[in-house]
Amino acid sequence: MKIIKKIEKAIQQKRTFCSFEYFPPKTPQGVNNLYDRFERMALLGPEFIDVTWNAGGVTSDLTIEICSNAQTVYGLETNMHLTCTNMPVEKIDHALREAKKAGVQNIFALRGDPPRGVKDWTQCENGFAFAIDLIRYIKKGYGDFFGIGVAGYPEVHPDSPSKEDDLKFLKEKVDAGADFIISQYFYDVDLFLQWVKDCRDAGINCPILPGLLPIQTYDKFINMIRMNNTSVPEYILKDLEPIKEDDQAVKDYGIKLLTEMSKKLIANGIPGIHIYTMNLERSARVILENLGLAQSQEIVKPLPWNRSLKNNRLKEDVRPIFWRNRIKSYIQRTDSWDEFPNGRWGDSRSPAYGEINLHSSSSFKYSNADCLAMWGNPEKPEEVFEVFSKYLKGEIKALPWCETALHKESSIIRERLININKKGFLSINSQPSVNGAPSTDKVYGWGPKNGFVFQKAYLEFFIKEEKLQKLEEAIKEDGFLSYYAINQKGDLKTNQKDETANAVTWGVFPGREILQPTIVELVSFLAWKDEAFTLWNIWKDLYDKNSKSYEIINELSTNYYLINIVDNNFQRVDKIYDILEKL
Amino acid sequence: MKIIKKIEKAIQQKRTFCSFEYFPPKTPQGVNNLYDRFERMALLGPEFIDVTWNAGGVTSDLTIEICSNAQTVYGLETNMHLTCTNMPVEKIDHALREAKKAGVQNIFALRGDPPRGVKDWTQCENGFAFAIDLIRYIKKGYGDFFGIGVAGYPEVHPDSPSKEDDLKFLKEKVDAGADFIISQYFYDVDLFLQWVKDCRDAGINCPILPGLLPIQTYDKFINMIRMNNTSVPEYILKDLEPIKEDDQAVKDYGIKLLTEMSKKLIANGIPGIHIYTMNLERSARVILENLGLAQSQEIVKPLPWNRSLKNNRLKEDVRPIFWRNRIKSYIQRTDSWDEFPNGRWGDSRSPAYGEINLHSSSSFKYSNADCLAMWGNPEKPEEVFEVFSKYLKGEIKALPWCETALHKESSIIRERLININKKGFLSINSQPSVNGAPSTDKVYGWGPKNGFVFQKAYLEFFIKEEKLQKLEEAIKEDGFLSYYAINQKGDLKTNQKDETANAVTWGVFPGREILQPTIVELVSFLAWKDEAFTLWNIWKDLYDKNSKSYEIINELSTNYYLINIVDNNFQRVDKIYDILEKL
Repeated sequence: MKIIKKIEKAIQQKRTFCSFEYFPPKTPQGVNNLYDRFERMALLGPEFIDVTWNAGGVTSDLTIEICSNAQTVYGLETNMHLTCTNMPVEKIDHALREAKKAGVQNIFALRGDPPRGVKDWTQCENGFAFAIDLIRYIKKGYGDFFGIGVAGYPEVHPDSPSKEDDLKFLKEKVDAGADFIISQYFYDVDLFLQWVKDCRDAGINCPILPGLLPIQTYDKFINMIRMNNTSVPEYILKDLEPIKEDDQAVKDYGIKLLTEMSKKLIANGIPGIHIYTMNLERSARVILENLGLAQSQEIVKPLPWNRSLKNNRLKEDVRPIFWRNRIKSYIQRTDSWDEFPNGRWGDSRSPAYGEINLHSSSSFKYSNADCLAMWGNPEKPEEVFEVFSKYLKGEIKALPWCETALHKESSIIRERLININKKGFLSINSQPSVNGAPSTDKVYGWGPKNGFVFQKAYLEFFIKEEKLQKLEEAIKEDGFLSYYAINQKGDLKTNQKDETANAVTWGVFPGREILQPTIVELVSFLAWKDEAFTLWNIWKDLYDKNSKSYEIINELSTNYYLINIVDNNFQRVDKIYDILEKL
Repeated sequence: MKIIKKIEKAIQQKRTFCSFEYFPPKTPQGVNNLYDRFERMALLGPEFIDVTWNAGGVTSDLTIEICSNAQTVYGLETNMHLTCTNMPVEKIDHALREAKKAGVQNIFALRGDPPRGVKDWTQCENGFAFAIDLIRYIKKGYGDFFGIGVAGYPEVHPDSPSKEDDLKFLKEKVDAGADFIISQYFYDVDLFLQWVKDCRDAGINCPILPGLLPIQTYDKFINMIRMNNTSVPEYILKDLEPIKEDDQAVKDYGIKLLTEMSKKLIANGIPGIHIYTMNLERSARVILENLGLAQSQEIVKPLPWNRSLKNNRLKEDVRPIFWRNRIKSYIQRTDSWDEFPNGRWGDSRSPAYGEINLHSSSSFKYSNADCLAMWGNPEKPEEVFEVFSKYLKGEIKALPWCETALHKESSIIRERLININKKGFLSINSQPSVNGAPSTDKVYGWGPKNGFVFQKAYLEFFIKEEKLQKLEEAIKEDGFLSYYAINQKGDLKTNQKDETANAVTWGVFPGREILQPTIVELVSFLAWKDEAFTLWNIWKDLYDKNSKSYEIINELSTNYYLINIVDNNFQRVDKIYDILEKL
């Protein structure tokens, strides 16, 4: 969706909003951390995010990749920066094509800075000299497909001859098709407000968002204001002087300062704030919390999972639960689908999952060294069980099947999960039952307000073959549980007769049909099973083939079944754990 | 579905089943009463019903119509009788074509009795002489489409030369393609069991169902046994002798007798019982209750409404709530649909409702005289309100919008309904809220066992324009209610923005997606609105154009809005009534 539409809607609803800017990290590990951050910061409800372009360096393709993932995997409306620096039109075309393919519908058009180490900016061959030429090129080639944002300079662009010229250039950019303006960072609110007034007087009528840069350390702050000749009111420098050696105090001062600045901006009719996060989380979060703007989106979480904003997935509203802790893999494996189950899984064709190469760099987010540090060198089954327990306790960050920490909602079953893992029921996915919680519930809620959400308790784990038989008997006796169990060879055991999907998460909302965004379903489970068993190999391959650890992991992956259990009686809790603990 | 499949399944499940036989009534009023009976007796869970053929009289087309409605509207698997009496092949073809069109897939093939007043049976021109010829004709023309049942005579058919011939003829009928046998009525169980044994010895291996005829009055009983030379054990006649003048005592004796007979039959391995109901309800019901067979079907009620068994409607699993008290009208108006909303209303094309001629004989089930008797001659609004109250109290049987009595589930809101009707909120449809009742609940339950069912409270009523505005304010304040209100002219008022369907009844079942069989939806409401306002005219047209009653009904239909309200908070009760009572 075009960001201008979202801004206009927020303005109409008199709802102050926020947006975040990130830059492409330099290492693969840094990129993974940024994705984790996307996931967490999405909960703050930004209207959109920016990802900067670094054509001067090596990270331009990375910008595209990050934008694509933000839009597709994390469901964040993304504003992709594009500069003229070192960008012949072929490269620009490539970037725009890729953006469009990923569903990115917003381009932030800039001339850009000179590459690192170069003093003066120069136009490249077959490239553009000004942002306005880039805008015209986009408009000519893509019509109205892209929304366009441009930068504005409250304190005059360093290369501009004068303030008047600066306003003239800005107006030209808007007239050429820019929808909105984000300002360079500043610390003098009066100066910014005056500039907005000047813009209006110059006939610039589109939304103007103030760019706010949290203070990280005193030195960085001084560098930044020097680089752009940023005016800083005297009192700020005075306040910082006595605490400049104390990084934490400086950060906290910055938070307080930006909170006050934001309040003043909002009081003066500014519709939203744009935070230059520098890829950091805390300052942005605390500022928004101070302002009461965290979760300022209209619908905080339309579905229990992040809706993908890729064009062909816009109607997607149901997913199997299996990839819940490996969302990128699910998105990758279903990328070729031309239709997504809409509302009821049963209405869709039988799902055909693409293959995934688990040994490619993008398939697992931690390096071998990180993995070894997390999972150690287990030499007997109990030591493997202990690794699972450690993950549940939060002592290690990931398991092969779980790329991120235990879901918040599972914390109420954490102790029971630890208990059964110690006994050798190795859990990799779970959700507690929920019987009609308000849709605004902080832990379980999703969807429009005045609704109610439900979950069937779900548990997925590896289990020794001998114990499986006993478990099947206990399940039969209970009557409410359904399960699918399968080993690496593909021997399937189940108490389900027909292959219909089982809704395990659903919501009831005013004036709507029932939404059922998460299901358990056999064909998907069979695809997931291959992935799940192959993930043991990621672990196994950390060790020498003759080592005890290799042997033990190999043994587990060969002798254990993967089982998923649904408690269809969502009015009770913990039944699955009661049964497992008694086995 | 073929009845033999249902019988085989029941036998495999070791589940004793029942079936009912009806005959076409002689008057339109009688037909309407029979339909009411279908609706009530469907709750007893018959595996199928029979409707007899009366080609000797005038009711043969009526048989087709009744079978079609039983199958399509009431969701009863129907066994249509077809005889050779006065039936040239053209008539037989017509009957089979119509049956197939209505989704009736079972024919009970008989030679038939001579027409009333004629002593000996004679073959008609271009017709058949024996049931077996009819069977062969059906098989030749329709292949395996129809399941076929035939009659068997435990005490030898009156026209048969001998018992041996009778068994030979029966075997021939089975060999020609009959799937199962229903016996003539009898009162000597030993004789029946011996006959079954004889059949088996003669190589007849299909299911044989015992026909049981409840005793209504002593005289009728004596007539029936004389007509067919039915053997009656001495003790029965002896038992009846002292009570023969007391109809009720005779009836009760018959119930006791047939209960005992059934027990003995079941104990001797007979898989189910067939009851010749003579279109009466009580005896059949009490016998089944005595036997613990009421609701012997596998799934008592797959959906909250009776699933239509017409072929093109087999997948239909969602309907708008509006026609809940006028189901025949809904079936008629959607008869031309080539696809039915399956699972989610939203997945279907926009519904286009056919027209209905409300002044045709089939559109309203009561005669003018009946209507006048029920609704009287109201001369002021309060007297109209009183008519609605009387209906709710069960003092009159119907309203123009409500063909049958108040639904059982609405009895818990009956007092509140009466209250608001007295105040001039004229209710025509309602359901209470249900928050996760077991699917086996006697009042609210439907669908497979171990499930849970839900309802949003629903109320539909006519309201004076002046009061509507106040109501809209109260609704706005509440936040959980959604509504559509419209007057005869078509002025629409609503608080719903988009035209999505609102699920008002849904169920959660093991291993399934959520079922949502009842919805509220705008386009359907607009079609229903025309019908609902025209139904005032049925009432109005009972009176002389110059009468006060005509004027008052006309005034109400012109000045009132029809409104439906859904309380989207299904976790609370009675809120709608609280609001209306305070207005």
